[in-house]
Amino acid sequence: MSAGTVSIPDPQFLRRAIELATQNVLTARGGPFAAVIVRNGVIVSEGVNTVTADNDPTAHGEVNAIRSACRSLRTFTLEGCALYTSCEPCPMCLAASYWARLDCVFYGSSAADAARAGFDDAFLYEELRKAPLQRALPMTQLLQVEAWESFAAWIASEKKIDY
Amino acid sequence: MSAGTVSIPDPQFLRRAIELATQNVLTARGGPFAAVIVRNGVIVSEGVNTVTADNDPTAHGEVNAIRSACRSLRTFTLEGCALYTSCEPCPMCLAASYWARLDCVFYGSSAADAARAGFDDAFLYEELRKAPLQRALPMTQLLQVEAWESFAAWIASEKKIDY
Repeated sequence: MSAGTVSIPDPQFLRRAIELATQNVLTARGGPFAAVIVRNGVIVSEGVNTVTADNDPTAHGEVNAIRSACRSLRTFTLEGCALYTSCEPCPMCLAASYWARLDCVFYGSSAADAARAGFDDAFLYEELRKAPLQRALPMTQLLQVEAWESFAAWIASEKKIDY
Repeated sequence: MSAGTVSIPDPQFLRRAIELATQNVLTARGGPFAAVIVRNGVIVSEGVNTVTADNDPTAHGEVNAIRSACRSLRTFTLEGCALYTSCEPCPMCLAASYWARLDCVFYGSSAADAARAGFDDAFLYEELRKAPLQRALPMTQLLQVEAWESFAAWIASEKKIDY
């Protein structure tokens, strides 16, 4: 599929994500978020927020959809796929979308909408724009010289699989 | 444990993360990244990068360590825990650290070091600082009014578990 085709939104897929997000609340399974991943006009995975159900703070709708699509397609990259998500991805899910090499993202609610519903998405975007020392989460660097050894091993490795 | 105690780094835990990261390369299991989560001076979980081994682009060392700690402790929040990671967390892992409510992060290599070893961490920090329309990953908003319905259901729900 060309990037031109995958980048034209089909609202039915976003409506499916919104429906799953609402169902996820009504069944008390988790937060009001869900996502679907589409390739060649077909849904290859669906994911809903299961943070509390699965005791997993990373189990956002988008992350669950990405993990599920990769399992189904037996790949660690999702080139040629579009992400439809009920809400603008939080920084975790947006970065996950880059790492997954998704072609494009379509979203319904904004991070500001999520903030009005009590979620930290907009706050996290502000935090990630700051220098490490200015963030609410204390971050401290140490052992930088020793830590380079892992990267030196990676650069020297002839067995590595790039990703 | 007081925040004051958990926020004082113990280099042995970072050395363990660095050792795991290097082993992960030497065994050709995955990328040169690993993390450990510590509570009350004890390691509660370890995670290495398994992106290629598990076909999971979200399986960074920090995410794996967070997921493992939450499974072990049967919780979706890690207050009172410190993250020791061989490299400054990428935006996905940093946002995951916020969602997990970790107390603090100690890291070895910087995102700039990771860039020198061929990884996108520094690029992703630049991307997340941009407005959605200026990013390399195309993002399009649609159906904003319909999408609010999921949040309206959440606000109205009496069965929800906040997280």
